[in-house]
Amino acid sequence: MNAVPTLRWLGDRHGYLQLIDQTRLPGELVQVDCHDVATVRQAIRTLQVRGAPAIGIAAAYGLLLELSDLTEDTTFFLRLAAAREALISSRPTAVNLAWAVQRVYDVAERMRGQNLRADIHEALWREARAIHEEDRAICRAIGAVGAPLLANVSGVLTHCNAGGLATSEYGTALAAIFTAHEQGHALEVYVDETRPLLQGARLTAWELLRCGIPATLICDSMAAQVMREGRVQCVIVGADRIAANGDTANKIGTYGLALLAHAHALPFLVAAPASTFDLSLANGDEIPIEQRPAEEITHGFGRRTAPEGISVYNPAFDVTPARLIHAIITEHGLIRPVSEHNVRQTLGKNR
Amino acid sequence: MNAVPTLRWLGDRHGYLQLIDQTRLPGELVQVDCHDVATVRQAIRTLQVRGAPAIGIAAAYGLLLELSDLTEDTTFFLRLAAAREALISSRPTAVNLAWAVQRVYDVAERMRGQNLRADIHEALWREARAIHEEDRAICRAIGAVGAPLLANVSGVLTHCNAGGLATSEYGTALAAIFTAHEQGHALEVYVDETRPLLQGARLTAWELLRCGIPATLICDSMAAQVMREGRVQCVIVGADRIAANGDTANKIGTYGLALLAHAHALPFLVAAPASTFDLSLANGDEIPIEQRPAEEITHGFGRRTAPEGISVYNPAFDVTPARLIHAIITEHGLIRPVSEHNVRQTLGKNR
Repeated sequence: MNAVPTLRWLGDRHGYLQLIDQTRLPGELVQVDCHDVATVRQAIRTLQVRGAPAIGIAAAYGLLLELSDLTEDTTFFLRLAAAREALISSRPTAVNLAWAVQRVYDVAERMRGQNLRADIHEALWREARAIHEEDRAICRAIGAVGAPLLANVSGVLTHCNAGGLATSEYGTALAAIFTAHEQGHALEVYVDETRPLLQGARLTAWELLRCGIPATLICDSMAAQVMREGRVQCVIVGADRIAANGDTANKIGTYGLALLAHAHALPFLVAAPASTFDLSLANGDEIPIEQRPAEEITHGFGRRTAPEGISVYNPAFDVTPARLIHAIITEHGLIRPVSEHNVRQTLGKNR
Repeated sequence: MNAVPTLRWLGDRHGYLQLIDQTRLPGELVQVDCHDVATVRQAIRTLQVRGAPAIGIAAAYGLLLELSDLTEDTTFFLRLAAAREALISSRPTAVNLAWAVQRVYDVAERMRGQNLRADIHEALWREARAIHEEDRAICRAIGAVGAPLLANVSGVLTHCNAGGLATSEYGTALAAIFTAHEQGHALEVYVDETRPLLQGARLTAWELLRCGIPATLICDSMAAQVMREGRVQCVIVGADRIAANGDTANKIGTYGLALLAHAHALPFLVAAPASTFDLSLANGDEIPIEQRPAEEITHGFGRRTAPEGISVYNPAFDVTPARLIHAIITEHGLIRPVSEHNVRQTLGKNR
């Protein structure tokens, strides 16, 4: 979708990871080169790379970067496990992060005892690239599954960024919109700016404009009015972690939007790959919610916009209960109605 | 409440109006001197002074400023009427503006034919000061009526600024909170930052901090989560215009908050003086909603935060239907349940 990819690996297995610095968009298109785990971890923590699938891919490559420093001594697995933990702990809510890092780590684990550093390095590189490549196909599949749900919709509301910048290149929630657009379906997208970090205003608006899709930016507080005026007939968002019963953690504000959609009898859709599901959690109460620094709210636009000394509450995510979700769009098909049975059935046969 | 008043008239009837420039808060406490109608109109349009009661008082004094230029010729009333229209048209939604300007104008109208410029000037000055003085008493009365509704509440959510900066000095929604606080009731206030212009973050947070009331700032998108976590047991807001049936126009985001409060079974309260009611409108569909410039959203606070070319929808207000409002707090008592009958009964006996 983007001329410059969200992230890419440059060179052979001794190469490095290059990311778009998403904190600089839309003003500047700047890339960050990551040559070690610490830089990847920092990029994830500061949201230079964000979006559940994208941070999974970045962290998978991140683990690979640790190998350039590792010798074939007895500390190899200890140090690899430490790098794995450093990456997984960089952000707590999106489960794709742990899933991807563990998947790459497990390749090394399975080769334990072989003591062939070059072979392990090669195998991990292959696995990280596989995760990256698979994500492209998954996003396309999500688009194909989701687009028909927008068939009778002329206006759709989205929150935060679940687009190409949140994934390898095509998005989850936006994949359904991109696919509908490619199929010739005229859609207008209302974009919540998504305070505090404005991923909607900065990233989603930018992606939609580049693709020529009509997009209208609103403040988060305007969503109810946009629904009431009939400007949108559907809401579609991504996800950071989905529990076994379908309860969905996503960017703060999503739960409120789901309630507002319910009050206006509009379908509320979630789009996410299978890797976003955490079937070890019975429901959303168990999903850890990241608390972010107060300065994201008090210094939102480069200068202080709240008085000194004010307390701040800044949860980065909230959990939308399954009962408010009309359907979850996955690469394996629709989960509808959203229930533990249907979640396990749709994902289970593919796991 | 504030050491520096929101607005004041300085000097005798030949004096001038001085306002706190609310666009500079909380960073700087700067005052604007208004010596003519054009400056008052500009101050209202740019939100240097805002809040339905405060712009009413400012505009009442504004009409007085026109008199310093008027001679006792035949164009006197034509020119006074033109100034009245200029002030009333400066913002469309808050009805207090038209109410206050018309009230001052009517004094002159009643003296038509007397041709005593000095007497008219004196009478109008008296009327503008009366509006100002009455507002102080009205806000205290609203506080007294509203505080008991917070008796069993430990956390309350408010939106935008309905405090001392929105009125002569004590507020409407915040008056209930200030009064409860003065009565020794421990309350924590959650403050919606209120995009796009951050009246909550900049003004309400500032007022509460100065009064020593515990306040926690959140983004508008966090309100549902704050309700879900049980941090607040009530929502209280001000109003810009209330129709005869109780439908209430207030800052954009209010309608969504009312729906979220309803979904969490929390009382949703509106606090406003009688002058905010427009009994000529049967319901909220007839309330004109101001559209504000796109730049308020795309250039929040000095730098561009959305891509060039993005469309923007920026309604300044929305309308909350009466059915979502638990009670309206007025200086004449509570309107509860909210119905046209109860609105007319509470206001009628005092009109």
